[in-house]
Amino acid sequence: MSALEKISSNKVFEGELAKYKFKSAALGGLDAQFNLFLPKNPTGAKVPVLVYLSGLTCTEDNGAQKGGFFGIAATQNIAILLPDTSPRGAGVPGEDDDWDFGTGAGFYVDATKPEYSKHYNMKTHITVELPQVIEAAGLPIDFKRQSIFGHSMGGHGALTLYLSSKTKQYRSASAFAPIANPTKCPWGEKAFKGYLAGGIAEAVDNYDATELISKRTEPVHILIDYGTADNFYKQGQLLPENFLKAARDVGYDEFQVRVRSQEGYDHSYYFISSFAQDHIHCTFDFDYL
Amino acid sequence: MSALEKISSNKVFEGELAKYKFKSAALGGLDAQFNLFLPKNPTGAKVPVLVYLSGLTCTEDNGAQKGGFFGIAATQNIAILLPDTSPRGAGVPGEDDDWDFGTGAGFYVDATKPEYSKHYNMKTHITVELPQVIEAAGLPIDFKRQSIFGHSMGGHGALTLYLSSKTKQYRSASAFAPIANPTKCPWGEKAFKGYLAGGIAEAVDNYDATELISKRTEPVHILIDYGTADNFYKQGQLLPENFLKAARDVGYDEFQVRVRSQEGYDHSYYFISSFAQDHIHCTFDFDYL
Repeated sequence: MSALEKISSNKVFEGELAKYKFKSAALGGLDAQFNLFLPKNPTGAKVPVLVYLSGLTCTEDNGAQKGGFFGIAATQNIAILLPDTSPRGAGVPGEDDDWDFGTGAGFYVDATKPEYSKHYNMKTHITVELPQVIEAAGLPIDFKRQSIFGHSMGGHGALTLYLSSKTKQYRSASAFAPIANPTKCPWGEKAFKGYLAGGIAEAVDNYDATELISKRTEPVHILIDYGTADNFYKQGQLLPENFLKAARDVGYDEFQVRVRSQEGYDHSYYFISSFAQDHIHCTFDFDYL
Repeated sequence: MSALEKISSNKVFEGELAKYKFKSAALGGLDAQFNLFLPKNPTGAKVPVLVYLSGLTCTEDNGAQKGGFFGIAATQNIAILLPDTSPRGAGVPGEDDDWDFGTGAGFYVDATKPEYSKHYNMKTHITVELPQVIEAAGLPIDFKRQSIFGHSMGGHGALTLYLSSKTKQYRSASAFAPIANPTKCPWGEKAFKGYLAGGIAEAVDNYDATELISKRTEPVHILIDYGTADNFYKQGQLLPENFLKAARDVGYDEFQVRVRSQEGYDHSYYFISSFAQDHIHCTFDFDYL
């Protein structure tokens, strides 16, 4: 893990969006990039951080360019950390063949199949390595006040990293159109069979938000939005209704798990930007710890 | 000019962003595309419209995806019309050789050089043809309540179409980092020599905002923002100070012409999104007609 190199900077809403690069140990020594929005911070005091995980085919830029997050974050005085969605250039045969597996599709797991386990460790990259490298750089982020949200594959990432954290790393999770029950949909099945030595069975206890919520007993704070005109929802890739049922079955009420069906919205960043205000609000206005 | 064909639709901030295609007479019979944001409109009453002109290399999508305009427009109950920046596929030899001339760089003029005059008529396309084709389609836009804004080359377009309109077509104009004195900068010189039979001399009276404001006497309502970290500003491509001086020299005060230098901002859509609120406000909160 090397020190951070700042490779670009844009002033936005009085804060700074910076893109950083470093050699990532979690990703097997490859260069990794991420974007970090820091609100204007005259005192230099540490600010809370919201992690945004993007979806299939995306990089660290999609949410930054199209999400409409920074004006809201500036008002709330919180940072937004936007990682990439996979290692880049791992060189695993076939990793660039499909848009829904391999490059751009890391699924926020730590791979256990030998051919992927050196590089495809996005879970460790996001939960352990990025906080370490950002703290080591002295950036004013308070990782004790951290929440996480995401879109599609990134919504899956947000929910599963939140629900599987034994250290309560994140205060809340929210998601736009998440892959909410990936062991029961084609995208998830393909990813887990590809990355995990134990295949789907290995994913059930670790990487499926619906399975994880059904075994949870402690308080949670989760918001999910999905659109009724979302073709991936219609195709059964997202299955938010399964997540909602599992949450209600174990007793979570709508104050702990809120799943909203948004009439007429699709899977695009136009949908995300329309509800970003609620997601960037919700993650800090309720502190159950 | 053919009827509109809707080729995509996204719900955004309770309104609709639709992309349309039609055969454009102004552009010599080529297919033209534009985006139109319509706010949620339960009564179907006609709404005001703000035209957004994008910069070099852009299409009708850049402002839609990255500008952060629609949440603000929804609150104000106004439509936003986003045209393309040039004809596409005109087939003029060399039109695709440079990023700052030809395709993606129509400069919002009506070309008079023979090789360009059939297709490169973005001024007529935007000021005459788009209102006609949109009204003919029965869309609920009130073109009598129309303003215009833009970025870089599109800021040049917004200012010049506003200032040169003999019918007071637009109530106001605003611009992010406009090419404000194009007869005095490399981008403008290249464009005018390329598109206009009379070259730069032909542009002075028609297509240069600084020249136009210096001959204007009627009330105007103009807002310009530019960033001090904008490399194109530093290179002398924008020259907003020339525009400001010309405006003050003929007596326009800061209530009629406001030019704001924004410390540390660059030429990107991060800059645009940071100040979009002011631009979408200003164009309708002051009605001098």
